[in-house]
Amino acid sequence: MMVETQEEVPEIREPLERVGITNLRTVAKVRWKGKEYTFLPIIEVTIDLPAEKKGIHMSRLVESITEAMGEAVEEEVLRTHTSLEELGRSVIERLEEKHPHKRAEIWIKTHLILPRTTPASGRTTYEPYDVEVGVIKSENGSLEKVLRVRVIGNTACPHAMANNNGKTHIQRAVGELEIRAPFDEDITLEDMVDTVESSFSSPTYTLLKTPDENAVVRKMFENPKFVEDVAREIFSRAKERFRGKIHVRVISNESIHKHDVIAETWS
Amino acid sequence: MMVETQEEVPEIREPLERVGITNLRTVAKVRWKGKEYTFLPIIEVTIDLPAEKKGIHMSRLVESITEAMGEAVEEEVLRTHTSLEELGRSVIERLEEKHPHKRAEIWIKTHLILPRTTPASGRTTYEPYDVEVGVIKSENGSLEKVLRVRVIGNTACPHAMANNNGKTHIQRAVGELEIRAPFDEDITLEDMVDTVESSFSSPTYTLLKTPDENAVVRKMFENPKFVEDVAREIFSRAKERFRGKIHVRVISNESIHKHDVIAETWS
Amino acid sequence: MMVETQEEVPEIREPLERVGITNLRTVAKVRWKGKEYTFLPIIEVTIDLPAEKKGIHMSRLVESITEAMGEAVEEEVLRTHTSLEELGRSVIERLEEKHPHKRAEIWIKTHLILPRTTPASGRTTYEPYDVEVGVIKSENGSLEKVLRVRVIGNTACPHAMANNNGKTHIQRAVGELEIRAPFDEDITLEDMVDTVESSFSSPTYTLLKTPDENAVVRKMFENPKFVEDVAREIFSRAKERFRGKIHVRVISNESIHKHDVIAETWS
Amino acid sequence: MMVETQEEVPEIREPLERVGITNLRTVAKVRWKGKEYTFLPIIEVTIDLPAEKKGIHMSRLVESITEAMGEAVEEEVLRTHTSLEELGRSVIERLEEKHPHKRAEIWIKTHLILPRTTPASGRTTYEPYDVEVGVIKSENGSLEKVLRVRVIGNTACPHAMANNNGKTHIQRAVGELEIRAPFDEDITLEDMVDTVESSFSSPTYTLLKTPDENAVVRKMFENPKFVEDVAREIFSRAKERFRGKIHVRVISNESIHKHDVIAETWS
Repeated sequence: MMVETQEEVPEIREPLERVGITNLRTVAKVRWKGKEYTFLPIIEVTIDLPAEKKGIHMSRLVESITEAMGEAVEEEVLRTHTSLEELGRSVIERLEEKHPHKRAEIWIKTHLILPRTTPASGRTTYEPYDVEVGVIKSENGSLEKVLRVRVIGNTACPHAMANNNGKTHIQRAVGELEIRAPFDEDITLEDMVDTVESSFSSPTYTLLKTPDENAVVRKMFENPKFVEDVAREIFSRAKERFRGKIHVRVISNESIHKHDVIAETWS
Repeated sequence: MMVETQEEVPEIREPLERVGITNLRTVAKVRWKGKEYTFLPIIEVTIDLPAEKKGIHMSRLVESITEAMGEAVEEEVLRTHTSLEELGRSVIERLEEKHPHKRAEIWIKTHLILPRTTPASGRTTYEPYDVEVGVIKSENGSLEKVLRVRVIGNTACPHAMANNNGKTHIQRAVGELEIRAPFDEDITLEDMVDTVESSFSSPTYTLLKTPDENAVVRKMFENPKFVEDVAREIFSRAKERFRGKIHVRVISNESIHKHDVIAETWS
Repeated sequence: MMVETQEEVPEIREPLERVGITNLRTVAKVRWKGKEYTFLPIIEVTIDLPAEKKGIHMSRLVESITEAMGEAVEEEVLRTHTSLEELGRSVIERLEEKHPHKRAEIWIKTHLILPRTTPASGRTTYEPYDVEVGVIKSENGSLEKVLRVRVIGNTACPHAMANNNGKTHIQRAVGELEIRAPFDEDITLEDMVDTVESSFSSPTYTLLKTPDENAVVRKMFENPKFVEDVAREIFSRAKERFRGKIHVRVISNESIHKHDVIAETWS
Repeated sequence: MMVETQEEVPEIREPLERVGITNLRTVAKVRWKGKEYTFLPIIEVTIDLPAEKKGIHMSRLVESITEAMGEAVEEEVLRTHTSLEELGRSVIERLEEKHPHKRAEIWIKTHLILPRTTPASGRTTYEPYDVEVGVIKSENGSLEKVLRVRVIGNTACPHAMANNNGKTHIQRAVGELEIRAPFDEDITLEDMVDTVESSFSSPTYTLLKTPDENAVVRKMFENPKFVEDVAREIFSRAKERFRGKIHVRVISNESIHKHDVIAETWS
């Protein structure tokens, strides 16, 4: 006979908001716009725990992930999801059949590789972006999503440029955009990446031949920006383009300092 | 003639909540209960930026830190702070003279090394804890602090113990406690560490002779706990002991899985 | 007219061993044993630089990667590689046509997800492993490979068990195995993972129902091991099973301490 | 009666090169040139394990550290070490009395904060550097040290400058210098930091007023360097200045790419 310690009444009767598994690495497939994308995400899944239960049944969370992902490791995919948030919803739906709960969350952290065209030679280059997708089911059954992208760009300092006859310090910068919205709101990670990437002094590219490199250098000098300017531009464009609660954070890895500078705002 | 580009009116007139410097490593000294402690913290300082200014003067933030810390690198310390949050307030006070702003924040992340006594042989052992202190000045001038500690302990699974005649899986676990309170609320990092450390199946120790190791092993088996139990115990003790907004997160590095389990709650 | 600064003679005439690109995230596909695996690896590619040249042409390294990987992002894959080291060799071969050099290296770091069967309920579970593959072309044209796997398992302390009537401390442990061998030596990452995973007190599993969890607990208690025992077992099995230079490192995240313990050896 | 499992003969009789403790955070004090410096290092200590012993006595390694460091946490320091490597040797000396071994190693990883003067306004600024010190005792009793410094600087690309009328891309770069030498060789971490820092397009500073910022910008444009140039300059200067085995690695966080570029060489 198995003992189900999780079902016992705990000594300390406190409800817990988020109990589950985290840092689980797995494989996932998504079919988006007719193409199949494979991800190796890190996943977190949590549910709430009522005051009168000692613990949750952790293996059922893993089963929900495994079943929703299961097809992904088969060569012939019978059912794929059209986005990472669809996949997240699918895990939560399976969880509903397996484990009682009032609230549930899933967070999927991975990399997106998107094709771009270089600015002068017109070559195709594949650019990596860090993305994270959360799906949150509330007590009332409503479903929200949180979409996050992290894009590498650059800043060319306008203050140094004004004081040094057009010379200035330039550096890598990282822009982060988060949107929290109802699940059915039409927002794509690709559009979010585009919003951030176009707000730097210049976009960056993995492949750059010399004419492309020259084009990027010219663009940076024509387009000097403080970290504050980049944050404002991402925020202003995101408000125009997307509906939801917006959070922007930009960090510039200053080439003249050992520390970074930061600009952050939210709606 | 210097150009002050920061003072110009930006194209996009959006106020920004947090603009400043981050990931700045420095040295700091604090005199607490008659003893002097040296830290090598990572610091973030931000202020708000109004819609009509293009940028902030970053170097003035660095100057505020440098001046408040300055004495710390001199052998003869003329003025020391009695806690990390006192040091944070001192940076914000200097900032008030240097740069106009309505809101200001400082975050100081470092390690605390505290003496402990081993459970059987009674030896002194020095235990490391990750801590972070934030001081937040609001628009109305009120001052809040955020105190965070991160403590390494362990969990011994009660479910496996009930199903395996007293045998079970045991693992390292990490407990995090955050308290947000008015600046003058009397809360010490040391007491917060103690609250978390006493909530695991057993505390952990850097130095353990064989009789000590035996005592820790016995304690873990007498005191089996889910990650949920640890979170509830920290939360319940913290609510009794401290006033403020409390956030608890416990992560257990399961010895039977490659992923972790998590329990989280807040007031 | 473009200036090719890289071709100039540098002020300081020192040959450099390794010059290239690093931390490049991309997508790669490999067809192994009839199944297709997608990876999102981090890549480093370097070549040597002779004393009389100022720099290398970095974009040609990126082109070699892009071309070798190119097919991987197309849905219809015309040519795939049968292993990560085949893919690495393919990058080096393309590099030979693009950039003169005497020595070349590529390092591909990614995650491998492998199916396993749980010990009692016989379910399928997908387990993640960190892997890294290096391909090194020497001045004489010979090709070597370096294969690395990193596997999460556990240790149950035999010393505490002997002193506490069968009770002991248990914890997550990480085993690393590296083999350096001629390129054509028949060694698979999967076999290396298996060698490490079977050397712990017990393997770990992502999915464990209660009977499986009981089986793992029993196995850990029947099989107590120091970190030293795990290192010796991996080393001894690897020497029997694989030809090449072997390096073993095991780190145990002690549940009774805040620090880790380590055992390391090499052939 | 205690059982000493470590003293038993193991099933697999393989000697192990390095067995010990790692990732131990503690506090250490060093008195150098008349001033006292406090560190919060991460420490690794290992010894060899002969084929016929099952394990080492881990707690004795911790005791050696604790005793050598012990004074550091007392306000009145009775004995301090004159350098991190002196402190490392002191740990190894104590280990000799506590645990039989043929080889021993200690690695101490920490941050060094050094005063600098800004280039135009002449202010004092405190600059952080990552450092690591190893002390290695061989079977024949000889003592070697390994000193590592990691310095943040920058590169201004000479190729882009030649092709864009003096405009170019600039970015943060990280230079690492390692020297392995007999213990008594006179080499200071401060001199090593200086060797690396002076090899970039410009040094970087934590505090920079506008005239200082202008000076750094001018210096970067007057001094364009590939990552290869920086590596060569560090290597060439280090060979002139220090005796020992030298390893140099420079990584440039390209502002026009999402990946980094690397140049590495060794003697």
